[in-house]
Amino acid sequence: MSYTNLIKICYLDYGEYKSTLQMLEEAKESNYELGESLKTNLKTLVTTLKTLTDMKSMLDNLRINCSLWDPDLPVIYGITPTYARPVQKAELTRMSHTLRLVRNFHWIIVEDAETPSSLVTNLLKCTFMNYTHLAAPTPASWKRKLKEPKWKKPRGVSQRNAAIRWLRQNKNRDTDRGIVYFADDDNTYSLNVFEEMRSISKVGVWPVGLVGGLMVEKPLLDSVTGRVIGWNSHWRPEREFAIDMAGFAVNLQHLLSNPNAEFSFNVERGFQESALLSQLVKIEELEPKADNCTKVYVWHTRTEEPYLGDEKALRSKGQRSDENIEV
Amino acid sequence: MSYTNLIKICYLDYGEYKSTLQMLEEAKESNYELGESLKTNLKTLVTTLKTLTDMKSMLDNLRINCSLWDPDLPVIYGITPTYARPVQKAELTRMSHTLRLVRNFHWIIVEDAETPSSLVTNLLKCTFMNYTHLAAPTPASWKRKLKEPKWKKPRGVSQRNAAIRWLRQNKNRDTDRGIVYFADDDNTYSLNVFEEMRSISKVGVWPVGLVGGLMVEKPLLDSVTGRVIGWNSHWRPEREFAIDMAGFAVNLQHLLSNPNAEFSFNVERGFQESALLSQLVKIEELEPKADNCTKVYVWHTRTEEPYLGDEKALRSKGQRSDENIEV
Repeated sequence: MSYTNLIKICYLDYGEYKSTLQMLEEAKESNYELGESLKTNLKTLVTTLKTLTDMKSMLDNLRINCSLWDPDLPVIYGITPTYARPVQKAELTRMSHTLRLVRNFHWIIVEDAETPSSLVTNLLKCTFMNYTHLAAPTPASWKRKLKEPKWKKPRGVSQRNAAIRWLRQNKNRDTDRGIVYFADDDNTYSLNVFEEMRSISKVGVWPVGLVGGLMVEKPLLDSVTGRVIGWNSHWRPEREFAIDMAGFAVNLQHLLSNPNAEFSFNVERGFQESALLSQLVKIEELEPKADNCTKVYVWHTRTEEPYLGDEKALRSKGQRSDENIEV
Repeated sequence: MSYTNLIKICYLDYGEYKSTLQMLEEAKESNYELGESLKTNLKTLVTTLKTLTDMKSMLDNLRINCSLWDPDLPVIYGITPTYARPVQKAELTRMSHTLRLVRNFHWIIVEDAETPSSLVTNLLKCTFMNYTHLAAPTPASWKRKLKEPKWKKPRGVSQRNAAIRWLRQNKNRDTDRGIVYFADDDNTYSLNVFEEMRSISKVGVWPVGLVGGLMVEKPLLDSVTGRVIGWNSHWRPEREFAIDMAGFAVNLQHLLSNPNAEFSFNVERGFQESALLSQLVKIEELEPKADNCTKVYVWHTRTEEPYLGDEKALRSKGQRSDENIEV
C-alpha cells in the first residue's frame, strides 16, 4: 500500500469514527432506532480505531493533506532546485507550509549535490507531503565561484532538467493529467497561483511581483482578442518571452509531447525562461491567467544572506555555535 | 453567531453530510436496517447542506482551520507589527500560510499607521484565520527617517504595546488560557515552535537561528539543574536576557498579572527584549523549550529590499507598472 493511500485511509477512518460516534449520541438523545448490525459495526469501528485517537496531532496533519487531495483534479508538480546554504532549512520550511495548503500538490525537490542531504531528507519526511527527492550536481565548470555574483552563471539548470527527466520516465503522456511549475525556494506564492495554473492546456502566464526592477512584470494583452501580445518588462525587453521563471507553468502532457524541451547552459544570461518556452509554444498560444493578468499571485522575494561575522570568528578558534544543532 | 462558530458549524455539517451519505451507501450494500426517522433525518440533512457542496474550495479552507481548533488547548496569540513596504503583502501572505497550520492560533496584527490599510484588511479576510486587526502609529519623533539604518531606532514598540493593551482589555486573567508570542513578519517559523510554547507557565525560551552574527543564538543550561544560566550570544552579551524577540513567549495569565509590563522607547538599542523580560521573570525561572534548547525551530530571516530602479524611472515620467494591480 502506498504512503498516500495509507494517509487516505487513516483520514477516512478517523472521520467516520468521529461522526459515527456523534450520530450514535444524537440517536440516543432522539430515541432513534438503530439496527443491531449497525451497532455491532460501530463497536468494531470504535475498537479498531481506538489507537488513532492517540495520534491526533499526526492525524491533523494527515487530514489537512488528504482533505486537499481530489482524484478528479490535475496534479501540480512543483519543481524546486535547492542548494546548501545557511538559510536553506528556513526557506524550505516556510515554502512547505504554503505547499501543504495546495490541493493535489507533488513536490519535486532537486538538490545541487551528488546525493540527497540528510537535512532535506528529514525536512521532507516531516512535511507529510507528496514528494520526490532528487539530487543532480551542477557540472564543476558551471558552479558559481566564491564571491562571483549570483547572476554570473545560470542556476538550477541541471536540477530542473533532472526533474523534467523524472517526469518523462515516471509519467504517462496520455493518462497522467498535471501541470509543471518551476518554483524556486525563495519566492513567495499565494495559494491562488496554484489554482490558476490547474486549467492550463499548453502554457499559462501571469504577472510576477518585485522583479526586473519593477513592482510588477506582466504580460500585455490585446484588448480585443485577449491574447498575449508582449510584455511590460524593462530588463532585456527583446526576449521573445520576457518573463520570470515564477510567471508561467506548462501542462504535463504538453511537456511530455515535446520530448526534447529542456533548459540549457548555452543560452544568454536571463534567457533561460525564453529559451525553454520557445521550444514549447508560440506567443499567441499563451493562456493568460490570474484574472487576465490583473492580479499578482507570486512575488520574486529574495532572502538576505545572514551576517555571520561572529560565527566566522568562532570557527577560526575551532568552535561553532551550531555544534550538535541543525539550523 | 460569531464567525468562528459559523466556521465550526459548517465544518461539522459538511463532515456529517459526507459520512452520513457514505454510511447510507454502505448500509444499502450490506442490507442494514435503517430506522425510518434516521432516513428522514438524512434527507433533511442532504437538502439543507446541498449548497455546501458547491463551496468545496471554501470549505476545505474552513475545515483546515476548524480541524486545528481544539477547545481544550490554550490559544496562541501571535503579535505581529507590520508596516507598508513593497514586500509587505508577500511577507504577510507566506507568514499566514504557516500560521494557518497552527492549532488554536489568534493573529493580532498591528499596522504602523493611523488606520488599518485596505491591503492588510483584504489579506486577512482571505486567510480564514482568527485575527484581530489593529493600527497604532509610531510617534513622529521615533519614526525612521529615509536612509536612516534600520537599527538606529527601536521598531515595533507602539504596535506591540497596542496588542498588549488589547489583550488586557479583552482577555480575563483568571479564565482565558493562552500564550503571547511576538512574531515579526519576516522571520521563519517551524510549526514545532508553536507547539513548544503552548505549555509555558511564565516565560519560555529557545534557540533562534541566523541572528546576532551566529548560526544560532541559544540559552545555556546548567547541566545538573537544567535551568537557564546564561546565553551564548556574542552581541551585547551583558544583557540580562540576551535573546531575540523570536526566542521567547509569555503565558497570557502571567502577562496580565503584571499590568505594567510593556515595551518602551527609552531603552538602550537592542535591549527591548531584555527590558520587557526583566519586568516579567527572573532568569532562573525561565522555562527552556525546544527539546531543552537543542533544536532550532525559528529563524531570524531577513528579506532583501527589492531593486526597483526601473519603477523609479517610470514614476518620474508619471507612469507605474502597478497601475490598478495590488502587489
